[in-house]
Amino acid sequence: MNQRETLKVNEKGRLEIGGVDTSDLVKQYGTPLYVMDQKYIEDMCKIYADTLKNEYGDGMICYASKAFSCKEIYRIINNMGIGADSVSGGELYTAASVGFPMEKICLHGNNKTYNELCFAVENKVGYIVLDSYTEADTLDDICKGQGVKQKVLIRVNPGVEAHTHHFIQTAKVDSKFGFSIDSGEAEKVVKYVKEKANLDLVGLHCHIGSQIFETKSFLLAVEKMTDFYQYLKNIGIEFDVLNLGGGFGIYYAEGDEKKSCAEYANYIKNIANELKSAVEKKGLKKPYLILEPGRSIVGEAGITLYTVGRIKDIEGIKTYLAINGGMFDNPRFALYQAKYTVVAAQNMLAKKDKVYTIAGKCCESGDIIAEDCQLPQIKEGEHVAVLSTGAYNYSMSSNYNRNLIPPVVMVKDGKSRYVIKPQTYEDLIRNDI
Amino acid sequence: MNQRETLKVNEKGRLEIGGVDTSDLVKQYGTPLYVMDQKYIEDMCKIYADTLKNEYGDGMICYASKAFSCKEIYRIINNMGIGADSVSGGELYTAASVGFPMEKICLHGNNKTYNELCFAVENKVGYIVLDSYTEADTLDDICKGQGVKQKVLIRVNPGVEAHTHHFIQTAKVDSKFGFSIDSGEAEKVVKYVKEKANLDLVGLHCHIGSQIFETKSFLLAVEKMTDFYQYLKNIGIEFDVLNLGGGFGIYYAEGDEKKSCAEYANYIKNIANELKSAVEKKGLKKPYLILEPGRSIVGEAGITLYTVGRIKDIEGIKTYLAINGGMFDNPRFALYQAKYTVVAAQNMLAKKDKVYTIAGKCCESGDIIAEDCQLPQIKEGEHVAVLSTGAYNYSMSSNYNRNLIPPVVMVKDGKSRYVIKPQTYEDLIRNDI
Repeated sequence: MNQRETLKVNEKGRLEIGGVDTSDLVKQYGTPLYVMDQKYIEDMCKIYADTLKNEYGDGMICYASKAFSCKEIYRIINNMGIGADSVSGGELYTAASVGFPMEKICLHGNNKTYNELCFAVENKVGYIVLDSYTEADTLDDICKGQGVKQKVLIRVNPGVEAHTHHFIQTAKVDSKFGFSIDSGEAEKVVKYVKEKANLDLVGLHCHIGSQIFETKSFLLAVEKMTDFYQYLKNIGIEFDVLNLGGGFGIYYAEGDEKKSCAEYANYIKNIANELKSAVEKKGLKKPYLILEPGRSIVGEAGITLYTVGRIKDIEGIKTYLAINGGMFDNPRFALYQAKYTVVAAQNMLAKKDKVYTIAGKCCESGDIIAEDCQLPQIKEGEHVAVLSTGAYNYSMSSNYNRNLIPPVVMVKDGKSRYVIKPQTYEDLIRNDI
Repeated sequence: MNQRETLKVNEKGRLEIGGVDTSDLVKQYGTPLYVMDQKYIEDMCKIYADTLKNEYGDGMICYASKAFSCKEIYRIINNMGIGADSVSGGELYTAASVGFPMEKICLHGNNKTYNELCFAVENKVGYIVLDSYTEADTLDDICKGQGVKQKVLIRVNPGVEAHTHHFIQTAKVDSKFGFSIDSGEAEKVVKYVKEKANLDLVGLHCHIGSQIFETKSFLLAVEKMTDFYQYLKNIGIEFDVLNLGGGFGIYYAEGDEKKSCAEYANYIKNIANELKSAVEKKGLKKPYLILEPGRSIVGEAGITLYTVGRIKDIEGIKTYLAINGGMFDNPRFALYQAKYTVVAAQNMLAKKDKVYTIAGKCCESGDIIAEDCQLPQIKEGEHVAVLSTGAYNYSMSSNYNRNLIPPVVMVKDGKSRYVIKPQTYEDLIRNDI
């Protein structure tokens, strides 16, 4: 567990988040329950925004809202003065519904639909990140029709692919996203988009991966992108904006780096310094820098509270501890064999002398949340918390097995409130004929 | 493609389902669109029910509704006279909402909640399949409180585990489900439940796997289960019911067996014959036989229609064809690397001289629907159909990336109708504060 002031063990030996005892949350809201620590989210936004401003200057942090999108999160990040990265009409709609300043949004996607592009232009989205020739054609037409000139970026592949603890450099990138710099494709598409009368190509975007801990891959991306900016400058194309995406790693479980909120500043600081020196060295104008952290803003902010149901000890094999949730509220183990830290929320100080496999309630053998969890002896009816579930849990949730998606509660300064209400059975059949 | 009268290429060279040209479906309903062939579903129900009746006698087919659950499917299977296998309160609620005869439902689950058990008893569900000691305690209490005696089964592990094309026999089963026969756990729990005053233990249930093609594993399960019934009889415990679960394999893609609707009868026939001879040989009374096919009733009935968006040819690597759907409407490639057949719905007779990777529109590299698809040259705006998407597609769908879940249209005799209406952006924020 990556402890902090707003996620700690209280004097009763219970897990406390945002100043609220998880036992009280369970009593008030029931389980399964997503809980989000508002202060952590705000702190992360502030640290990223301040570091970008202080270490670099002109730029914008855009929260990658696919990690966790709902009305309240757009309100919170807007209050913190940062922008948003959006990937669909649904996300744009949600942001717009709370009056989010749409000019602070970057719209991404390898296959935005015609309607999504129209919606984005109508709502004056700040930047649209192009990912194909025909998308440029379509968007140009839409802008012409609406009589506007739209700021666009192009997604390119710098040939750097990063994973949790390592990175690779490849000449050719096999991805549905972007255009390879090395193959010459990126240059071709830049020239193509430059000619579009209703598109204002202001820069490029790259995104090198997810859940990345080491900084070297980001610095390499800076090097490759500024090399390309320099190359383009030499052929007469200069850019004002550089969007380096996101991908900063968070603590899920043992083996991951533990960082305090403040230490996340280093990602920004290192990138900022590398970029400043690169543009100086290469004689480029200093671009407006956009960075798009998502997971690192909300991931560790969230926990999920479950009630323990049946416990099944299969002698000589393992002990299954079944919770009243599962792959419908957290499919990341099923999808990626993702690791999580599970704690006995009401009994944090007890000796952890048992090993459990945490299973969900879905009728599927693969419905597992975490394996080999070291926990104290746990009884039915007790509560466990799965940590670092703020990103890609609610946003990936489903009604699989016709289970209900848990509500989301925001906690801050000892107070809690719903930000997403519980689904009801009626919701399940709302669109059924 | 596993052709049939209700899924074929029509005289215009287009894919036709249930007598409706998919081009007309696209025009009328848009894409992405789930389409279900009602006649196929009805034929499968009838073949299963008739074969069970004719080859075996007393028993019930229970459609495993987790494969595809909505109000209309319960109406259809009820019209066909078969029962349902349910795994949650949400499924029970949906069935009850259309007046489904609840006594024809088996309720499964490794961790049914207290509320789900109450709901089941109140609604007079036919059979509750127990999966732990404490569940037996809880259910006994609930039944006592409601003054009823509930028919129950117990889920056991016969030590047969089957997969698509092979099966294994294991002494110990590592599963969150059931109690091992071989370890003696099953006998212990049988004796325990037998003593419960408000539970009527009428038999046992096993389920050996999913997407199984070879019959041998089912026959072995029959042998192991009847051996155990014989053993129990010798210690004075006789059962009236045997529930052998489901798991019959369907055609997804090359490498899978192609079967006509009628050929699925063989699963039931073989099981029936094996069971009849086993009970005779072992001196058992012939149990009421419950079988629970799900995927095989709805899987091949369904297709998903998509519009082709951006096509990206990465020279020397592959060509990505992006559709306006993805892992939010079909997460099975992301989850299981499941294989699918993809066809050019409007151009079925053209020479298939291109290879595409079908990618979704989600902002995630792993958002792939199928790899190495042999298709004719396809242009943006054309439509592709992914086949065999009737099971575990709609039921596993999510709003990931805030994409909308596609509607479901049922087709029959050249007519089509919504059975699940399209989601709207308003649906996304319905529970948001």
